[in-house]
Amino acid sequence: MVTQRYQDRLTRCSRLMKEAGLDALLLTKPANMFYLTGDGRLCAYAMITHEGKVALGVPSTDVDDVKLLAHFDHIAGFENEVGMIHSIAHGFEHFGIRAGTAGLEYTFLTQSMMSMLTHPHAKPAAVTVKDCTHIISQLRIVKEGPEIEFIGEAAKVADAGMTAAIKAVKPGVTESQVAAEAEYAMRQAGAEGFSRTYVSSGPRTNIAHGLPTGRQLEEGDLVMIDLHPIVNGYSADMCRTVCTGKPTVEQRAAYDLYLQAQQATVAKVKKGVEMGELEQTMHATLRDAGHAEHIFGPPIHGVGIEFEEAPLPAGHAFFHGEKAPTPLEANVVIAVGNCGLYTGAFGVRVEDTVVVTPEGPMVLTSYPRRLEKDT
Amino acid sequence: MVTQRYQDRLTRCSRLMKEAGLDALLLTKPANMFYLTGDGRLCAYAMITHEGKVALGVPSTDVDDVKLLAHFDHIAGFENEVGMIHSIAHGFEHFGIRAGTAGLEYTFLTQSMMSMLTHPHAKPAAVTVKDCTHIISQLRIVKEGPEIEFIGEAAKVADAGMTAAIKAVKPGVTESQVAAEAEYAMRQAGAEGFSRTYVSSGPRTNIAHGLPTGRQLEEGDLVMIDLHPIVNGYSADMCRTVCTGKPTVEQRAAYDLYLQAQQATVAKVKKGVEMGELEQTMHATLRDAGHAEHIFGPPIHGVGIEFEEAPLPAGHAFFHGEKAPTPLEANVVIAVGNCGLYTGAFGVRVEDTVVVTPEGPMVLTSYPRRLEKDT
Repeated sequence: MVTQRYQDRLTRCSRLMKEAGLDALLLTKPANMFYLTGDGRLCAYAMITHEGKVALGVPSTDVDDVKLLAHFDHIAGFENEVGMIHSIAHGFEHFGIRAGTAGLEYTFLTQSMMSMLTHPHAKPAAVTVKDCTHIISQLRIVKEGPEIEFIGEAAKVADAGMTAAIKAVKPGVTESQVAAEAEYAMRQAGAEGFSRTYVSSGPRTNIAHGLPTGRQLEEGDLVMIDLHPIVNGYSADMCRTVCTGKPTVEQRAAYDLYLQAQQATVAKVKKGVEMGELEQTMHATLRDAGHAEHIFGPPIHGVGIEFEEAPLPAGHAFFHGEKAPTPLEANVVIAVGNCGLYTGAFGVRVEDTVVVTPEGPMVLTSYPRRLEKDT
Repeated sequence: MVTQRYQDRLTRCSRLMKEAGLDALLLTKPANMFYLTGDGRLCAYAMITHEGKVALGVPSTDVDDVKLLAHFDHIAGFENEVGMIHSIAHGFEHFGIRAGTAGLEYTFLTQSMMSMLTHPHAKPAAVTVKDCTHIISQLRIVKEGPEIEFIGEAAKVADAGMTAAIKAVKPGVTESQVAAEAEYAMRQAGAEGFSRTYVSSGPRTNIAHGLPTGRQLEEGDLVMIDLHPIVNGYSADMCRTVCTGKPTVEQRAAYDLYLQAQQATVAKVKKGVEMGELEQTMHATLRDAGHAEHIFGPPIHGVGIEFEEAPLPAGHAFFHGEKAPTPLEANVVIAVGNCGLYTGAFGVRVEDTVVVTPEGPMVLTSYPRRLEKDT
């Protein structure tokens, strides 16, 4: 039954591979393997032919587990790195691929992994390689119904995590302890895991990636909390900023401005809108208020198996190995509000996970957007 | 005061760079930047000259925060990816480097990051690049006194996490909930974070990287718990396997055998011992009992800023861009027991963080090594 899902995806994949002149894909990125086969794990590979056939190579310890989870035509276990290299060669042999072009994930592979996958013992000399990042992104970008349901479940778990985190926010508590409450609540609410949790406070709210530290919250601090639970392999992305006490006039003004920019951007989310227009909406509001230099990072990005994936605004897409985005199709899922407003003394950020529909935005994350903790 | 620490490290780094014919290092791996400057974060770089001078480039939002944390000679903020590229070019200019060789982290850089850092606008055309992975590993491998103290603190936090996790182990609880208890306890005990938590149960204990799922523990299941707390930027690595009920004869036999192999290996840890000898000790015990094909992964690896770092056994080192290890020096910290024994129906694993001393092993992780949960 679920097999049909993977066959459909592989059929679409075949079409894109033929257009791109690829004879095979050699994938090692868990998110991509998960999408095309139903299982993605470390130390494993999936070889996909342009006919949509799949050979998996996994640690020999994992073969039985993968058989329960994945759609594949051929599977082989290996004992170590040398075994993996030989297993890949065996995969090319199994499919009769002696020459041609194989797609590799250039945005995932380190130089050393690249050397392994292109080792003379791993592939026929007449097989050349090129990047296939944008092909898999193109496949994954429009979500199927069940995928949107999973992201919706993750969004509910994010709400539960945020509720617990903000309840814990008070002077004397550390950033790490606030993160602890969020993560605990997300797992209790059904998450099998989460990507990194950001909790920053006081002057640290001004930094772009506020991983939690042992810093104790102080009266009047802003606290920025960014959560990324994973449910059934799918992520949500939500950020809230709250004040431990009564916000200052400056904190209030910055927060209201940012929320206004974010909500105006969310309101424009609709089938056919350009990522550039959303980015521009977000930035213009902040820029017009004198904050042109207080923004960092793409204001919008895709959400799915990864909490940050394609589409990205054109300028960022280029440096992440992605193609410039086309107008948003229905059932693309994005996070709106990723860039933050960093005034120097403090930062504010509000971010929600939103589905693009023909009618407009469907916002999946619903925790209240309020600077005051208790109102 | 702490500045002296970084100056000493940079002096040692200079020496290795000169030996390797490197005029500069261009680092983006947080762990390496943290070691050499006191701050390591995403979306940032550290340029180190062969005279030990440091230029940092960070998001403009983060400049003030980095100034509080890092040792550097020059710092610049950038607004986005294009800004980062120009900032790197400015760094080369600032140090008057117009030609020569720059070291890059080939085991960290993806193909797309590599393209950014070697972009024609990022570096002078006459600056060529090569891998510097082994240089930084060589610097980091022998730990200083305070580093061992931090790893020891992380080990105590791992003990606290394991206590909470194993207390939660009972039929009906999910793997993710067991992970939740461990992570919560680690943050409460002072961890600023942790690397991925593994919790697997029942047949899933047989897989090499058992990330937690929603699987509910059943009576008689084995449960494998692997924790990696981070304290003051340093990690510990500990794994325990327990049974939810009364273990079977097979479970008991496999566990006792593995523990015997692991303890025999720990006993051989001493200044001057070869990684190969430790690996051989671990493997021989398992092989002689008929389990040659039930092992996966390096049985030993280094522990420090990362929970898995150099040294690695020679066979694995090669594929991770590292040099084959030399005999262990005093104050190298390793994890012993990483490979596991995977019988097919289930797996067992016991792993501890151990300091190499001239007298023998100093074991930092101390949670009891017992298959029965309540004895």
